[in-house]
Amino acid sequence: MTTVEESLFLRACKRLFVERTPIWMMRQAGRYLPEYRAIREKYDFQTMYRTPELATEITLQPVRRLEVDAAILFSDILVVPEAMGLAVEFVEGKGPIFRKTVQTAEQINDLNVPDMEESLGYVLEAIRMIKAELNSAIPLIGFSGAPWTLFCYMVEGRGSKDFATARRFLFEQPGLAESLLEKITAAVTAYLSAQIAAGADAVQIFDSWAGVLAPHHYRRYSLKYIRKVIEGLRRDGQPVIVFCRGAHHSLAALVECGADVLGIDWTVDFAAAKRQVQGRVALQGNLDPAILLAGPEVIREETLAILRAAGRDPGHIFNLGHGILPTTRPDHARYLVDLVHEESQKIRAS
Amino acid sequence: MTTVEESLFLRACKRLFVERTPIWMMRQAGRYLPEYRAIREKYDFQTMYRTPELATEITLQPVRRLEVDAAILFSDILVVPEAMGLAVEFVEGKGPIFRKTVQTAEQINDLNVPDMEESLGYVLEAIRMIKAELNSAIPLIGFSGAPWTLFCYMVEGRGSKDFATARRFLFEQPGLAESLLEKITAAVTAYLSAQIAAGADAVQIFDSWAGVLAPHHYRRYSLKYIRKVIEGLRRDGQPVIVFCRGAHHSLAALVECGADVLGIDWTVDFAAAKRQVQGRVALQGNLDPAILLAGPEVIREETLAILRAAGRDPGHIFNLGHGILPTTRPDHARYLVDLVHEESQKIRAS
Repeated sequence: MTTVEESLFLRACKRLFVERTPIWMMRQAGRYLPEYRAIREKYDFQTMYRTPELATEITLQPVRRLEVDAAILFSDILVVPEAMGLAVEFVEGKGPIFRKTVQTAEQINDLNVPDMEESLGYVLEAIRMIKAELNSAIPLIGFSGAPWTLFCYMVEGRGSKDFATARRFLFEQPGLAESLLEKITAAVTAYLSAQIAAGADAVQIFDSWAGVLAPHHYRRYSLKYIRKVIEGLRRDGQPVIVFCRGAHHSLAALVECGADVLGIDWTVDFAAAKRQVQGRVALQGNLDPAILLAGPEVIREETLAILRAAGRDPGHIFNLGHGILPTTRPDHARYLVDLVHEESQKIRAS
Repeated sequence: MTTVEESLFLRACKRLFVERTPIWMMRQAGRYLPEYRAIREKYDFQTMYRTPELATEITLQPVRRLEVDAAILFSDILVVPEAMGLAVEFVEGKGPIFRKTVQTAEQINDLNVPDMEESLGYVLEAIRMIKAELNSAIPLIGFSGAPWTLFCYMVEGRGSKDFATARRFLFEQPGLAESLLEKITAAVTAYLSAQIAAGADAVQIFDSWAGVLAPHHYRRYSLKYIRKVIEGLRRDGQPVIVFCRGAHHSLAALVECGADVLGIDWTVDFAAAKRQVQGRVALQGNLDPAILLAGPEVIREETLAILRAAGRDPGHIFNLGHGILPTTRPDHARYLVDLVHEESQKIRAS
């Protein structure tokens, strides 16, 4: 029997030999699955991630149906701002809305650096339950939003296409913005450390809003704090994946941030990214999620192109370049998993 | 007296010597101006762009207040889909909504390649009126959406953060998608040619949704048609500016598309872009529009960084990296114009 340390996913994270390329999909525990929607009909979104039994069931659903090589915790990045003291509501069709936002020194002072068991114990309990249920060869990925991405929501108060209010705050009051980023960084570091202590085999940091910053601002206001989180993590070999959507300009700098794996979005050419990172980190990605909306022929062609660009080198984890779309047919997702397994094995054996 | 051909803007487009760097701002004729909002209180958005007198007044407003080096026609990229037969409504707070969308061969056949004077005569009339009113040394920029960006709206039927329906159509039915792109390309080519014939001194092609495509899809489904538009244009030396938001991966390919000027968004490092294009086209950009929300000190620091990266070479047109934000203070925009003029003159004289 394989142990989790010998799993394809953890070996690929560490750039060790694998006979085939592991695959999982961002948002794989989500709305495209009828078994997820069945739960969603009975419970609101917050109840789903706050109830360890439900989070466990939802986390395991795609592992059962798709046979992906890793599970990812079902949760939301906004649990951290919540635990820091900002109540959030999820409004159907509108996304998350915060009742109050953060913009002054006083409001920053008022934020908690949360006690993990007290305010995020339900996440840690879900991790323990998932690990008890999960096939011992399938690793569990924990996650958090990156400090910059959480800052965006906490200052803006809701989703936005450009987070102009958050950027304004950054440029108008850089000192205050940095003190808020520091506080979020402390919370994220404690949160990911607690996830690892609870049993997460790897963690992913999602910087969903990296792409709204110019390259020099990105390095100053986002990358710097990602590096701090990774430096501060209490871990024992568990890999860290960093996925910064839209940070195409800073791949070379990201190689230095301490991550074991860089996730790349679908607007980055895989071969170009591979040349840039020069085998110093593993790469995760990067099929356009909309490709799964088309038929098997297109899925096959586009997937093979990425597998061929990755070649036989260790250190590739197949993934989508962003979350799986809610309109995806589950059989297309399953087709992708099988295709990646079969074709990567051929390429690696050749 | 300076003629339009001798203007800073047109000289910079052609990479001819200029004593200072010209500047204009995307969406400079817009909501951040109180004089614009005063008109908007009396008329709906469609009446504003369909009425040549109003479009003229709005186009001239930022030229008067900011003393920018070029005027850009006040209009909307969706006038082309409208002229092709797709009625569009602008719903406050929701953006454009099409009553019907395009997804079948029959619907593509039903689209008009519009007669310009008949269906877009109001735009051409506005151009003639603006040219008659405009100081003869200030050039007028006409514009159109790029075929791919118009395709996005025509298939999706509304704005979207990822245009997943448009991408699905592309991947599921590439042949049909290409026939739609061809038809849009013919309309855009005729439209920009008519704008030039009516008096536009330059034209800009906006590919606002370049960034939702992977690099290889971008070249196949967007760049190819931009090149076709430029090849097909009837023009007599009027420069073409191509602004593809999010096409960071294809700058080298864009250099070959026939554009005189490439607009770059604020997520591209100016110095890196300059190295990539190697003086073969002029560059336009690329201050983060949110910088204008901060104070003069920050505006100054960030602007100087771009001017220094551009250096003394001809072929830089200062602009924002995206449209000016509605919350921008007009005096900040004016400060930027004066700053670019003064500081670029010093740098160019040094």
